[in-house]
Amino acid sequence: MASNLLSAPSRTLAPSPAPAPAGFRGRVPVQAHFPRRGGFGFGFAPRRSSRALRVRASVAIEKETPESEPPPTFLREDGHGSGSVRARFESMIRRVQGEVCAALEEADGGGARFVEDVWSRPCGGGGINPVLQDGRVFEKAGVNVSVVYGVIPPDAYRDGKGEADKNGAAAGDGHKPGPVPFFAGGISSVLHPKNPFAPTLHFNYRYFETDAPKGAPGAPRQWWFGGGTDLTPSYIIEEDVKHFHSVQKQACDKFDPSFHPRFKKWCDDYFYIKHRNERRGLGGIFFDDLNDYDQEMLLNFATECADSVLPAYIPIIERRKNTPFNEEHRAWQQLRRGRYVEFNLVYDRGTTFGLKTGGRIESILVSLPLTARWQYDHKPEEGTEEWKLLEACINPKDWI
Amino acid sequence: MASNLLSAPSRTLAPSPAPAPAGFRGRVPVQAHFPRRGGFGFGFAPRRSSRALRVRASVAIEKETPESEPPPTFLREDGHGSGSVRARFESMIRRVQGEVCAALEEADGGGARFVEDVWSRPCGGGGINPVLQDGRVFEKAGVNVSVVYGVIPPDAYRDGKGEADKNGAAAGDGHKPGPVPFFAGGISSVLHPKNPFAPTLHFNYRYFETDAPKGAPGAPRQWWFGGGTDLTPSYIIEEDVKHFHSVQKQACDKFDPSFHPRFKKWCDDYFYIKHRNERRGLGGIFFDDLNDYDQEMLLNFATECADSVLPAYIPIIERRKNTPFNEEHRAWQQLRRGRYVEFNLVYDRGTTFGLKTGGRIESILVSLPLTARWQYDHKPEEGTEEWKLLEACINPKDWI
Repeated sequence: MASNLLSAPSRTLAPSPAPAPAGFRGRVPVQAHFPRRGGFGFGFAPRRSSRALRVRASVAIEKETPESEPPPTFLREDGHGSGSVRARFESMIRRVQGEVCAALEEADGGGARFVEDVWSRPCGGGGINPVLQDGRVFEKAGVNVSVVYGVIPPDAYRDGKGEADKNGAAAGDGHKPGPVPFFAGGISSVLHPKNPFAPTLHFNYRYFETDAPKGAPGAPRQWWFGGGTDLTPSYIIEEDVKHFHSVQKQACDKFDPSFHPRFKKWCDDYFYIKHRNERRGLGGIFFDDLNDYDQEMLLNFATECADSVLPAYIPIIERRKNTPFNEEHRAWQQLRRGRYVEFNLVYDRGTTFGLKTGGRIESILVSLPLTARWQYDHKPEEGTEEWKLLEACINPKDWI
Repeated sequence: MASNLLSAPSRTLAPSPAPAPAGFRGRVPVQAHFPRRGGFGFGFAPRRSSRALRVRASVAIEKETPESEPPPTFLREDGHGSGSVRARFESMIRRVQGEVCAALEEADGGGARFVEDVWSRPCGGGGINPVLQDGRVFEKAGVNVSVVYGVIPPDAYRDGKGEADKNGAAAGDGHKPGPVPFFAGGISSVLHPKNPFAPTLHFNYRYFETDAPKGAPGAPRQWWFGGGTDLTPSYIIEEDVKHFHSVQKQACDKFDPSFHPRFKKWCDDYFYIKHRNERRGLGGIFFDDLNDYDQEMLLNFATECADSVLPAYIPIIERRKNTPFNEEHRAWQQLRRGRYVEFNLVYDRGTTFGLKTGGRIESILVSLPLTARWQYDHKPEEGTEEWKLLEACINPKDWI
């Protein structure tokens, strides 16, 4: 019998073998677009600017090696010093990872601890994947950080940059430019509490940056930020939902009054289970490929958003973690977890990319709940609390 | 609270509203290939013959209407009489549906009953979707039958048939041929027992046939058969697995000695969870687009396979439905159900097609287990019964 199936993990720094993903043996090109999140990499795909890079391109990613403990940094020593945006972003997500894990362990009440898998790649980058499972409050909580170095083929880089750039620095010197190295770093987390009145939380912040193409040092670089924080309750407790959205709005409003309405709608649009005509949950904020503001400002914005996770979530958990519930509440929560699984396996770009390209499966699928339920043709009775939740998933509301 | 969340359904003939699938309002063209199974339609996609129809084409399917009881036939009165292959196929799958449902209710022990949804489409075709949920033996069992009439655009029909046919009857009279009407009928079933030692069963048999294109009555028609039966246990009980595969082999061997080895391998190849490098279960038989044998012979073969479902499965259920089990057995079964969900949502062609094109969601997803589990980085200890099952899913065996 499998001895670890029902027992709670104890705190260890025991890296799993982090198996080589299927299809990856050293530096193998992968025909696909980039992931949005997960233990594998971080996404970028232009939506707003035709000059941004197109990313349905080949990338070269190495296999992972397990590490016994987290290194001070996953960054290469390649001239991007501690003051660079990538270095400050890595530092920020690792700080937030530590703070979130500590706060969750405290909220969980003392027993369960995060167990960490740490891995690196030979030519730079790596990840830390702490998972807390079967705690007193949390059924499953993963808080992944990873840093990925890779290479975009030059054709993909030039094709995406438009005619102006084709005739510019990258190609104007008569040399064919080489592949474009990139850096991507991010934090990605899903927290599934046990209590049906305590909502699931997902957040994910990431930064992407290219180096200049080899052979064209003067060519323009690309960078952008993406991410979001969203709430998935099984029951609507207005006080909680309003609090959550208020914290997101406060974070946005510090930077630009257009951010919150725009990123709230983007979130409602993204977490859409098309075959159900339902959102996964009650939204929050979501943005991607953000590069049309000052870079320092966006770094500060991503930091503010990541720092808003605990103030947005922990008060809700503290209020709801001990709320009494019965088997029907639990069954409804499990049905909504089924929807979470449907969204993540069918629509989430990071997950579907990771599955297709051989990312580290356990890191990618740590987002799935510990348990889920599918009941044939279940329809909540009109007017019930379950019906109200479903209604709000079908017709997104302005909560504040 | 949702009153039906935890209660067992009683036998009724209460059709659910069978909501219009998202995106379908009357006859709306859908850009997609055909489904392999599910409540929506039945698949065809050429694998073996370059002359077979290509099916990544637009099809026109109407929305469903609920019916109060099953009609004697879902076939149109269009000259395909009771002796036609399509009529005999429909008659066979409806007979098998009745026999399977009766046998499952008997095996379940008397309490739970199948609840039927019946629906039709205004221009012909329809379906019967009986579901037994939360029985004594079965957690969830669905046995869908459906008949679909649709239309393939003429370009898709001609493109798929190659140059010879382009210059033949379909186009040789100088008229542009019209759309190609098709008929598809099938039975599709997934049976999830509660006991971790009683395996999940899936089977699915379907027949596809085109009419001559409108405007080209002399053009050749297309037809083929597809289907299979496969077993997904959580624990290997050799006696059961050997019995199951023996019955499949006996059915195949009555027709052609090449069938069993070929369709056994096809099954192992099809039910492959690529991102896990595991099969969903221990296989069985699977075939598709089969039209390179006598049509009568293949109708008899599909009938034999469908009639082999009960002899293959019921003895196993009878032996295992009362086997004592503990929470660890149940947790492992739930983990394997998670794999079932991963396969169906990520890879199964019928499911993924249905989700994309707005099929009847509850019919499509009735294949998902009632409950499933995802545990971070679970690895069975070498030599355990769980490890043996996983090994056999990674390296398919010849069981007989």
